[in-house]
Amino acid sequence: MQQMSITQSPEIIGKKRRLASLSEASGRFSMLAIDQRQSLRKMISSQTGQAPESVLEESLVLVKRVITSRLAHKASAILTDPYMGYATTWEFIPGSTGVLLSLEQTGYSIVNNNERLTRLLADWSVEKALLAGADGIKLLVWYDKGASSAVMEHQKGIVQSTGEACYRHAIPFVLEVVCYSSDDIPTRGPEYAHEKAIRVIDAASEFSDPRYQVDLLKLEFPGNLKFVKEYQDRSFYGGSVIHDISEVRDFCRSVNDASRVPWVILSAGVEPEEFIEAIHLCNDAGASGFLCGRAVWQDVIKHFPNLDAMESYIETSAADAFDLILKANKTAVPWQQHKHFK
Amino acid sequence: MQQMSITQSPEIIGKKRRLASLSEASGRFSMLAIDQRQSLRKMISSQTGQAPESVLEESLVLVKRVITSRLAHKASAILTDPYMGYATTWEFIPGSTGVLLSLEQTGYSIVNNNERLTRLLADWSVEKALLAGADGIKLLVWYDKGASSAVMEHQKGIVQSTGEACYRHAIPFVLEVVCYSSDDIPTRGPEYAHEKAIRVIDAASEFSDPRYQVDLLKLEFPGNLKFVKEYQDRSFYGGSVIHDISEVRDFCRSVNDASRVPWVILSAGVEPEEFIEAIHLCNDAGASGFLCGRAVWQDVIKHFPNLDAMESYIETSAADAFDLILKANKTAVPWQQHKHFK
Repeated sequence: MQQMSITQSPEIIGKKRRLASLSEASGRFSMLAIDQRQSLRKMISSQTGQAPESVLEESLVLVKRVITSRLAHKASAILTDPYMGYATTWEFIPGSTGVLLSLEQTGYSIVNNNERLTRLLADWSVEKALLAGADGIKLLVWYDKGASSAVMEHQKGIVQSTGEACYRHAIPFVLEVVCYSSDDIPTRGPEYAHEKAIRVIDAASEFSDPRYQVDLLKLEFPGNLKFVKEYQDRSFYGGSVIHDISEVRDFCRSVNDASRVPWVILSAGVEPEEFIEAIHLCNDAGASGFLCGRAVWQDVIKHFPNLDAMESYIETSAADAFDLILKANKTAVPWQQHKHFK
Repeated sequence: MQQMSITQSPEIIGKKRRLASLSEASGRFSMLAIDQRQSLRKMISSQTGQAPESVLEESLVLVKRVITSRLAHKASAILTDPYMGYATTWEFIPGSTGVLLSLEQTGYSIVNNNERLTRLLADWSVEKALLAGADGIKLLVWYDKGASSAVMEHQKGIVQSTGEACYRHAIPFVLEVVCYSSDDIPTRGPEYAHEKAIRVIDAASEFSDPRYQVDLLKLEFPGNLKFVKEYQDRSFYGGSVIHDISEVRDFCRSVNDASRVPWVILSAGVEPEEFIEAIHLCNDAGASGFLCGRAVWQDVIKHFPNLDAMESYIETSAADAFDLILKANKTAVPWQQHKHFK
């Protein structure tokens, strides 16, 4: 027998071993995000009436601790941020739940009037994340294919260099792509729904190119379920019809066809009922599950800063919502069975 | 709020996170060893009548694959060797089961007539193990406190340099110490039973010194349960009485007092009935569980090379023995509660 391949490619084995840590035993991803920073600050600000910049870091930490300590055991992995999140919550994450750490600064820098640049966290790196026990790296990039070439080059460059670092450190690279239009069309409105699908499909195609070395894409829903003809009687119906369900199914299949790596769907803060529909549609098209945050826990903020009430909300309502979402996710395609899996 | 500590010490968080991956959610260790190489070769050789050196690597790989694929999900972690073991079995290890990889060559080199030197595997390192997805490093050292100073210096040096590398790579260091007497006293006989206890206690004291940076000791039973007065009616009784049970309990407590880090007990191939007694006694004294191999699966070799019979044996008899051992281990002290845990 030949010398085994491990000395040749510990990086490949390490990446797959860590993908197994991020997923359920079945290979399905059911990951919970609590890496929100600026958006969580705004949520707390809306609740308390403080200005966002006056919200204390302690308040963000409190929310992250309540959620992580009570829901981590249900998730196949927890996505959190290194400083306010992981540093204060790592002891709550069971050994059997994977850890995904974000690499980027919250939000974006605006250039050329309305173009968005992703920035990496200072004093943080893929290597440090691996040392700290992460099973995966998450990077969020903002993507508008109409952006200037300088912005596009910066965004693609940051993805490519992260891909190289993740390969070197044998750690899975989870890339979240959030599309936007620098034309200032509101991305939650009906005018953008069709455009959104086209952009998500394009993003899947672009960032699953092997040169980025992405292992898993975290994608927006391709379209908008608030504007689907068949959902007019649902609580999340948005008041106008843009898609019918067969068009939405086609969009989901196009994402799956475009993506040369396994992918999961993100929640963008929609309500659980809508997110469960998104999970069904995406998994039917070939997705490997979800990575969601606010769809599970966003209403905890209504109880801020009452710790008892927050804990009780997470242990009951949020846990119930998470259970429903987990149940919907049984149809996810195990990442090892994704059509392009190598 | 201060900048969180993660940027200062990802190594500390990483080590503890990975210890959590090696243990059950409760903090108890129930780890299964299948990193045997020379001893497995000898077992196969006894079964087939081949010379040990004629046993093919494929045969060892076959045994490792059958055991790992059918028992890994029951263990809090699997200890395996990198080449014949992990390289051929890693896909069988669920994400929720930790991986502990051995660093040393099998067996030992003999110098000065009867002194034993541990050698590290070639083309292998703590860094490669981390890349390949290991949650911990296991090193076995042979230890005779009467050995020459050159041998002692070599053995202690190898432990210390491994401790430094494990700290640098934020990976738990599991040190197995196997005591021997260069006076050629048979270590399984009654003459050695008392001496064995003294040597194990001394080993715990020596190698839990902070300079070695060991996170978990894997120790022999301090004494020999085959020669305990109260066990004369047991199947494992060895025909003469050397200890009574209170003396054995004192030895176990002395190990726990001597060890400044959490520790687990190894099985050294005793039968499950005897190993279960060892687990009770050690855990009562403060141990954090076990890391055992042959006590669970050794009789699989009686069915070699009949694959169906081997699989069936592992799925029934070995799985049942493992279940009994797991049940006995409920009294283990979670590593986070070890008296010296920092």
